[in-house]
Amino acid sequence: MHGERMAAEIAEQPAVFARILTEGRARIAAVAAAVRARQPRFALFVARGTSDHAALYAKYLIETRLGLPCGLVSPSAATVYDARPDCRDVLMIAVSQSGASPDLLEPFTRARAAGAITVAVTNAPGSPLAQAAEFALDILAGPERAVAATKTYTAQLLTLYLLVEALAGRDSAVANTLPARARATLGTEDAVAALAVRYRFAEQLLTTARGYNYATAREIALKLMETSYLVAHSFSGADLLHGPLAMIARGFPVIAVVPRGPGGRALLPVLTRLRECNADLLVVGDPDAAAAFGTVALPLPDSDPGDDSEPLSPLLTILPMQQFAWHLARLRGGDPDAPRGLAKVTETW
Amino acid sequence: MHGERMAAEIAEQPAVFARILTEGRARIAAVAAAVRARQPRFALFVARGTSDHAALYAKYLIETRLGLPCGLVSPSAATVYDARPDCRDVLMIAVSQSGASPDLLEPFTRARAAGAITVAVTNAPGSPLAQAAEFALDILAGPERAVAATKTYTAQLLTLYLLVEALAGRDSAVANTLPARARATLGTEDAVAALAVRYRFAEQLLTTARGYNYATAREIALKLMETSYLVAHSFSGADLLHGPLAMIARGFPVIAVVPRGPGGRALLPVLTRLRECNADLLVVGDPDAAAAFGTVALPLPDSDPGDDSEPLSPLLTILPMQQFAWHLARLRGGDPDAPRGLAKVTETW
Repeated sequence: MHGERMAAEIAEQPAVFARILTEGRARIAAVAAAVRARQPRFALFVARGTSDHAALYAKYLIETRLGLPCGLVSPSAATVYDARPDCRDVLMIAVSQSGASPDLLEPFTRARAAGAITVAVTNAPGSPLAQAAEFALDILAGPERAVAATKTYTAQLLTLYLLVEALAGRDSAVANTLPARARATLGTEDAVAALAVRYRFAEQLLTTARGYNYATAREIALKLMETSYLVAHSFSGADLLHGPLAMIARGFPVIAVVPRGPGGRALLPVLTRLRECNADLLVVGDPDAAAAFGTVALPLPDSDPGDDSEPLSPLLTILPMQQFAWHLARLRGGDPDAPRGLAKVTETW
Repeated sequence: MHGERMAAEIAEQPAVFARILTEGRARIAAVAAAVRARQPRFALFVARGTSDHAALYAKYLIETRLGLPCGLVSPSAATVYDARPDCRDVLMIAVSQSGASPDLLEPFTRARAAGAITVAVTNAPGSPLAQAAEFALDILAGPERAVAATKTYTAQLLTLYLLVEALAGRDSAVANTLPARARATLGTEDAVAALAVRYRFAEQLLTTARGYNYATAREIALKLMETSYLVAHSFSGADLLHGPLAMIARGFPVIAVVPRGPGGRALLPVLTRLRECNADLLVVGDPDAAAAFGTVALPLPDSDPGDDSEPLSPLLTILPMQQFAWHLARLRGGDPDAPRGLAKVTETW
């Protein structure tokens, strides 16, 4: 079957969550304690592709839940222009499935030499990045054989969530509900498959969200580009209003990720503007927002409402959209496991 | 004439450069001296839309030419999630044409209260952002009446360049050549207008670059979305290879910004991959790269080759592409001065 690997890895995610929550927590707590003792004052992430979306998610966590200023490194500053920033008191976190991308290793190694506290979050404990780090965290996702990352993305999200909560000295018991919630969310696949049919001939598409789920919007767009060759853009709801909104003509397909919580509520004015432009709007998430604004909707069955659960919502909102990308790729005659032009480890420099 | 305002402001840019270089330098030097005395250890930018592209450019300058770790703030961390990061020793730079966007003011004001050294780079000295800053820099671009920003973008780039060079204690005499170089670059408009015809029926497009000109690629895409309603994506050359390359089918239009210097050279392997995908490739910049890789080319007449001039190249490479967006908007029956759905000051929150 075309896409067998990707389908299997999508289905594995509740089990991966359970593994991280049981086997991974002690190591995460130990790393967090060691990092806290060093009192970092500034955080930086270095990542590419899907892992960059996990970093974007964690950037919001660090700013809002840990209270540290945070940035994303441009790897080419080091690899192209030989930048060597002073990294004392900087917590530098590399995020990479393979741990093997040379353009991450270079800025990461330099940062460590320049004083940074370095943490590598990878799915490959023996990888160059993990070995270059002072602290290595294994995301415990098991071998990933599909080209399009799915289970490693959500495993990165959960590992980073647990790390930031531990750095902030907070209990992360709320995460224990994730395996069951992920199973329930993946259980809506029939509705997802039916919805994908509607996009058989879409040529372009826009995804949007705000806050924690901006990463989800970016990751949905990337999955659709990788597997379905759809020209999929993503913008934060605020950036969308600064110019790109002009390109939204009547019927333009938009996917909005609207969790329950402040990030979802902050997107409602953007949804109003999109409706005024007569966009074709798929609302993923909050059933109320979906009913009020959606041309079509994918309400999530999540039974855990409230603002407190929003930081974990990106671990669930992406799940049906991975299924969506998988079904759409097959509907369009493609093989989700063999995207044209891509290799598993991307060698950039 | 449709687009009169935007055309006038594009043409004004050499004069704006000259004004900043004469009238603006003393104030920039004074601000830089005061900031240096405070010994910032990390830098953060807060900006949206076109100004966010100027911030992205300056992030590379700060990492490579000043040697400080640097990040871009997610305004919604403050406005949606009430984040209050500890900003001691942080240099926080807000970039905004109008200085009036509420979602920039909130994180900026909080950062100052949390210890940041604050600099506002605006075209509006009396604006809320300028007044909220410890140090305000006027980009001296004169009133901007077009909806699509052009002269204020390049004025932001030059102001930020001069600021970073002054912070690094370096002479910026090389910038004195800019007004003449900008005039020569704008002088190729006939070729630009002829080239735009070719894109009359393009529906989507991708822009790419690496390093300093990644901001140029982003800004080209935004101008094309705003004025020509083209679905224009941009990716750094490295990110493009991490997935999005799959969507590049035969004949897909790509615009690559290839300056002389390391950033241009680092893009050559990406151009090779794009040629293998049979993309339709417009190379803007280095005449040699344009001849070797371009399906079509817009060689820049810049007579100042060499790696040293690359940091200033984004102030020139964007100029013909502003003209390109203007011509294309008119060819497609639009009015570059009246993009649908946009206002001059975007009120996001």
